[in-house]
Amino acid sequence: MKEISGGVCAPKGFLAGGIRCGIKSGNSLKKDLALIYSPKRCKAAAVFTTNRVKAASVLLSREAAAKGELHAVIANSGNANACTGQSGMDNARKMASLAAGILEIDASYVAVASTGVIGVPLPIGVIEKNIGALKLSLRDDEKGHSDALEAIMTTDMRKKDIAVETEIGGKTVRIGAMSKGSGMIHPNMATMLAFITTDAAVEKDVLDAALKHAVKRSFNRLTVDGDTSTNDMALVMANGEAGNETVSFNNGYDIFARALEYVCVNLARKMARDGEGATKLVTVTVDGASSEEAAETLAKSAASSSLVKTACFGADANWGRVLCAMGYSGIDFSPEKTCVSFKSAAGEIEVCKNGENVPFSEEEAKKILSLEEIEICIAIKDGNGKASVWGCDLTYDYVKINGDYRS
Amino acid sequence: MKEISGGVCAPKGFLAGGIRCGIKSGNSLKKDLALIYSPKRCKAAAVFTTNRVKAASVLLSREAAAKGELHAVIANSGNANACTGQSGMDNARKMASLAAGILEIDASYVAVASTGVIGVPLPIGVIEKNIGALKLSLRDDEKGHSDALEAIMTTDMRKKDIAVETEIGGKTVRIGAMSKGSGMIHPNMATMLAFITTDAAVEKDVLDAALKHAVKRSFNRLTVDGDTSTNDMALVMANGEAGNETVSFNNGYDIFARALEYVCVNLARKMARDGEGATKLVTVTVDGASSEEAAETLAKSAASSSLVKTACFGADANWGRVLCAMGYSGIDFSPEKTCVSFKSAAGEIEVCKNGENVPFSEEEAKKILSLEEIEICIAIKDGNGKASVWGCDLTYDYVKINGDYRS
Repeated sequence: MKEISGGVCAPKGFLAGGIRCGIKSGNSLKKDLALIYSPKRCKAAAVFTTNRVKAASVLLSREAAAKGELHAVIANSGNANACTGQSGMDNARKMASLAAGILEIDASYVAVASTGVIGVPLPIGVIEKNIGALKLSLRDDEKGHSDALEAIMTTDMRKKDIAVETEIGGKTVRIGAMSKGSGMIHPNMATMLAFITTDAAVEKDVLDAALKHAVKRSFNRLTVDGDTSTNDMALVMANGEAGNETVSFNNGYDIFARALEYVCVNLARKMARDGEGATKLVTVTVDGASSEEAAETLAKSAASSSLVKTACFGADANWGRVLCAMGYSGIDFSPEKTCVSFKSAAGEIEVCKNGENVPFSEEEAKKILSLEEIEICIAIKDGNGKASVWGCDLTYDYVKINGDYRS
Repeated sequence: MKEISGGVCAPKGFLAGGIRCGIKSGNSLKKDLALIYSPKRCKAAAVFTTNRVKAASVLLSREAAAKGELHAVIANSGNANACTGQSGMDNARKMASLAAGILEIDASYVAVASTGVIGVPLPIGVIEKNIGALKLSLRDDEKGHSDALEAIMTTDMRKKDIAVETEIGGKTVRIGAMSKGSGMIHPNMATMLAFITTDAAVEKDVLDAALKHAVKRSFNRLTVDGDTSTNDMALVMANGEAGNETVSFNNGYDIFARALEYVCVNLARKMARDGEGATKLVTVTVDGASSEEAAETLAKSAASSSLVKTACFGADANWGRVLCAMGYSGIDFSPEKTCVSFKSAAGEIEVCKNGENVPFSEEEAKKILSLEEIEICIAIKDGNGKASVWGCDLTYDYVKINGDYRS
């Protein structure tokens, strides 16, 4: 497997585009409407937010994805179309049918995604007015991909995308992906949109299973601020243009699932690094838990703690906060058997052994914790369960972004 | 019932004192060792942190409180004596016996409390050296109370104390209290210490029940940063000096329990207002839930959300974030029946009706949300369950306090 360029347009037979149509506030020049499209109908799978409050786009796309086949996804930024009542549902349906109109397909094959402010009516008029321009923006190359990606970004500072190429049964298959999301991000799911394309031929059940597995290991191990949004969605479309023998549980599943997991983990790490106001990607790894789930819960509790996150911002080797956060995770473990070290490209330093302080150089710890990618490594000696979770530091800029801006 | 002065020394027969003995770092002139004492043995009840990682003081005091009788509590700030292994337990026991020595009582009647940095050995030597000065500081008046209170404060900016007087069976009884805590505060329990004294005669079972009830309605409805600490403790001592007929479930319980709840709620609100870096006390009230517990969980979810908290800091009437946070609380409710308004001394403004936006004046909302005490009022029309939760805004100073300081 190797990384390649092209994002969602890297797999054969996918087009993408993005335009500014005026959903984002008046002064913004940023793109806000995206379309990803495969002329050949795709097998599709998707997972959605677990929030009790669901955006209209989530309700509509859940319905569309349940049928298992899609041609396209249309997505807007600048407005979540959540808490908008019946007119919100009408607007989401209208978005799907506008996209279906320009693509000359049935609207039931179009998924819809939205991200932005909650509780404000979606300005469907500007979408209707500009839908022709969206069609003209469709391309099957890097620019098509990057126009679409720009159009789904909100407070994102960096582009989050990837594409990989691998071989299944002698045929080259590709997976491409983009995602957005930097605030309101917490497991199950992050406020995030992720669109994944592949030219692999894949059975519908297999696509479902592989996506669920990849999301569990990636987006659901991501935390920025503990808020699970109303609009989350991760969607994969497989059009079969690679010409491979269809991937089934007995044929090529491991290769495909591993590639999909690689893509999703890569996006999850990029989202954590680009958490609102974040200066650092913080990976928390728990090893030796009684199960993988226990390891994940313990790691999430540490990665989500405001006190751990501010300590990471301050490059402060405050391991007591790590143990404290594990202690209220709800998972049983023995503090007196717990060891903690901090790691980065600058080195690794043990700071807690069997639940107690070990003398260490504060200066060296500071150096390790000052890099942009740091890891908190925790060993608890209860079993073989291991999991890594991705988060970021909590900074002045997080407060600034969310205190000053109606997002 | 009326509020009076004197704090924990307001009830008859209680002495308190506090000194600086050098547990807090070298340059600090702040007091760090406190003692509260009743020469007459007290009935006692206490609740402790639910964190899996428990400080030595919590383990020791749980044992002491289980017997139901206490004479004194000795408390230090500047060091949590948590994650300190067997020597930590030895040090906690030594603290109790040092206090017992100067008071000439049995060490099993002394509770111990600690707050401060985790994982650093408690400097028991400086406590031993200064225990005589602690005895000399004991007084039965306002100054004794305030010396003790100063000595348990860490990043607290304000003193949190109260005393009330009421009448039970024709006798005047008093309840006095102090608390500390401004960070690492989250339900079950906050990183907080609360010491409550009363001269009422109260049966042990009744004291237990009244404290549990009061804590459920106060400290467990308090959230600052979502971190439940290793050292939390709320402790009440009743010495019976008021001469009332002993409070039992059939005799005076309601009056006593109501007074105790009043005292605890007062402290909880003061702790929320003094949350690390906070500029505002934010009360979130949910009415019309299916039960009081459901109302509490919904309100806590909104009060704990980083996005709601930063919006409060920015005086931004961002009700979508409130609904979103309720949506991931795990409680079933109907967003389409939910109404939200913001309230303060400057007025009340409805911003969301039946799950959708209502046109409102942003200017007026800003005015309401700019005061130091604000309330988010949520009606969900599912039943009669109602609860208020206290929190605060998330500010630059929270990040500064916790990013720059090993606490």
